[in-house]
Amino acid sequence: MRRAGSARRLINAAAVGNAEHLGSGGLLGFFPSLPPPGDTPVAPHEHRLATPLFPTGNMDLHILDHRLRVTSIAKNGLVNFTHPLIKLIFLRNRTRCKFLSLTETPENYTVVLDEEGFKELQSSEHLQVESSVWLPLNVVSNGNASSSSQAVGVTKIAKSVIAPLAQQHVSVFMLSTYQTDFILVREKDLSIVITTLEEEFNIYREVEGESVPLQSQDVHNGLQKNGKEAMQPTVHPVLIPQNQFCVMSLDPDTLPSIATTLIDVLFYSNSPQGEAQSTPSQGLDCIKFFSFSLIDGYISLVMDTEAQRQFPADLLFTSSSGELWRMVRIGGQPLGFDECGIVAQISQPLADSDISAYYISTFSFDHALVPEEDIVSVTDMLHHQRKEPAASGVSHPSQMFLVPIATPPPLQ
Amino acid sequence: MRRAGSARRLINAAAVGNAEHLGSGGLLGFFPSLPPPGDTPVAPHEHRLATPLFPTGNMDLHILDHRLRVTSIAKNGLVNFTHPLIKLIFLRNRTRCKFLSLTETPENYTVVLDEEGFKELQSSEHLQVESSVWLPLNVVSNGNASSSSQAVGVTKIAKSVIAPLAQQHVSVFMLSTYQTDFILVREKDLSIVITTLEEEFNIYREVEGESVPLQSQDVHNGLQKNGKEAMQPTVHPVLIPQNQFCVMSLDPDTLPSIATTLIDVLFYSNSPQGEAQSTPSQGLDCIKFFSFSLIDGYISLVMDTEAQRQFPADLLFTSSSGELWRMVRIGGQPLGFDECGIVAQISQPLADSDISAYYISTFSFDHALVPEEDIVSVTDMLHHQRKEPAASGVSHPSQMFLVPIATPPPLQ
Repeated sequence: MRRAGSARRLINAAAVGNAEHLGSGGLLGFFPSLPPPGDTPVAPHEHRLATPLFPTGNMDLHILDHRLRVTSIAKNGLVNFTHPLIKLIFLRNRTRCKFLSLTETPENYTVVLDEEGFKELQSSEHLQVESSVWLPLNVVSNGNASSSSQAVGVTKIAKSVIAPLAQQHVSVFMLSTYQTDFILVREKDLSIVITTLEEEFNIYREVEGESVPLQSQDVHNGLQKNGKEAMQPTVHPVLIPQNQFCVMSLDPDTLPSIATTLIDVLFYSNSPQGEAQSTPSQGLDCIKFFSFSLIDGYISLVMDTEAQRQFPADLLFTSSSGELWRMVRIGGQPLGFDECGIVAQISQPLADSDISAYYISTFSFDHALVPEEDIVSVTDMLHHQRKEPAASGVSHPSQMFLVPIATPPPLQ
Repeated sequence: MRRAGSARRLINAAAVGNAEHLGSGGLLGFFPSLPPPGDTPVAPHEHRLATPLFPTGNMDLHILDHRLRVTSIAKNGLVNFTHPLIKLIFLRNRTRCKFLSLTETPENYTVVLDEEGFKELQSSEHLQVESSVWLPLNVVSNGNASSSSQAVGVTKIAKSVIAPLAQQHVSVFMLSTYQTDFILVREKDLSIVITTLEEEFNIYREVEGESVPLQSQDVHNGLQKNGKEAMQPTVHPVLIPQNQFCVMSLDPDTLPSIATTLIDVLFYSNSPQGEAQSTPSQGLDCIKFFSFSLIDGYISLVMDTEAQRQFPADLLFTSSSGELWRMVRIGGQPLGFDECGIVAQISQPLADSDISAYYISTFSFDHALVPEEDIVSVTDMLHHQRKEPAASGVSHPSQMFLVPIATPPPLQ
């Protein structure tokens, strides 16, 4: 369950659990961060099958049973991928894909999907594929978490996961959803990830729906903790668009009800309107950002309030407080996949200030979403981070600048 | 109103009229064969704006305001056209296309659409385009029709339209829908069409939603009635598959409710099923045939009973008798577009026997649908036509054969 420490989410925990229970095919076993329907989110998870050999922490880290590819579709190439993507999103009985995330940004469409989904995408000049296989990690609090923090999301794992991995020079690709936060790491980095995190976490590997405690010696074959310090990271410029975002979910059984709207928003939002009724043009200080994910049967949607108005109000649900989020886009030039410490750079100060954040990496840039009421203090923090390198250990002051309001790059 | 002479259809006339009235944008003015909501189908049409100069018949022929292209998409090329077709089918506010028909057969997908729709289709090795512009004609009974026949569809216009056009060597492309029967003729043949039919019909040209009586002298500029007799037509082999078909409609406002099912059937029916649940395999003596049309806001669906079972039972409607239809596919080799008299060859004997028929031409073959209870007599008639050339004026007896049950051609 997303954000077990946040009482606001408990209502929705039940809603999601029940939705799954009512008819989506019972994929719960694949999804260790969500409690079984009827379970209380703070209780120990019923599906934990065994005690790990070396239980040293009070949190569980699950290595999920998905081998993911990170791809990018060019804006003008989406028409060539409509057929497979609609299949992956809407036609569950035609695909074995269990992990799909599709995010539109001004630059491109980032598609993260498992190997079953990936083989649906035909190679094309419009498709870029990051060469690695990525594995999603997922942190589950055991209820007796030491932190008294109310902050959620990437903030909650900033010090326990993000910072140690950055220290060990492991690059991560973050994918927050309504339900949880996935930390994608390269498969080849798995040993160092485990070595780095096993002191803090009980580590489980999901195998065909079951959580198997990791045998520590499995990965310790001569492997030493990396030990080398990561290079001081570049402090990247950020952009803070004016859109207000919401993070929502949907009963998978009602997905067909919003199919035409979702198809319109996902695949045709850049098409000219045929009839007189045009959408109000977004301000130049807004950014196009829409994210849909369907992971182990759970749906998550991140969209701005303008896109939200196109959907029926009674089907999408969000936290009971109906909070809105503001975006911090990280990166002036495309970030690539090799630099480590980018997430840490943002999540550390957020953790210091106890500010919640969703975090969504895409092919070109990273995106943090912070509560609207915190955007001023976050902006101040980012200014501070960029203007006072000594205070934040920044090594490249010449590259620091802050773009609080800026025009998004032109579409391709 | 489909088949004004058939009392069975009156219920659905009201349903269609009301559906249109309730929310699809009031395209009724473009659709002369349908009465305005609340009008009785047998009354003279309220929207007739003027009396034609030379009213010589008791039926009206409307030349509709659509310039159509007839295209074919290869089976394995459909993925490249999913994007524009989904837009044309489901996203009415993104297109000005008012005439779309999409029919899947074992050979290909036939797409008939107006110029606004056609410009959405990018040229491709998978797309064949018939070179002509076609105009849809539509016959409207004035209620005092001389025929006492209860037969409907192409049968009703066999002697008044189909036979005379065949005599004048005008090739037609027929498109029956739930609501009406469109007779497509090449734009370049329009003068000869008018000359041929003006004795029998009041002819109107639809111009921007209004019915304008045709000024006879407009088309008589030195034009003589063709006069030459058409060649005796080839009698084509026919195939009579075992499927039972239904001809249905749908309130356009409920189209989003069946979007995922329709998308599945239209675009993925040839994909392998990912999960265990596979559809029962069709018998070898059945044929793949599914037709969807959205014309001036009216939806028509022709599908077999196996496809029908995939749709929610409460949204699609058909005539109150719920009748089923059997198919006669005409043609052994692809028919092309230049031969005339093909429709006449089938519709004439059906008219002689007073048997109703829908008729759907596609890029490769023609398809007649006759009431299930009449299939034996139709089969006998077709046998007779093919075995006794003297009786039916057939000139190429060597090419005649009947294939009552046959394996559909392999998919491309």
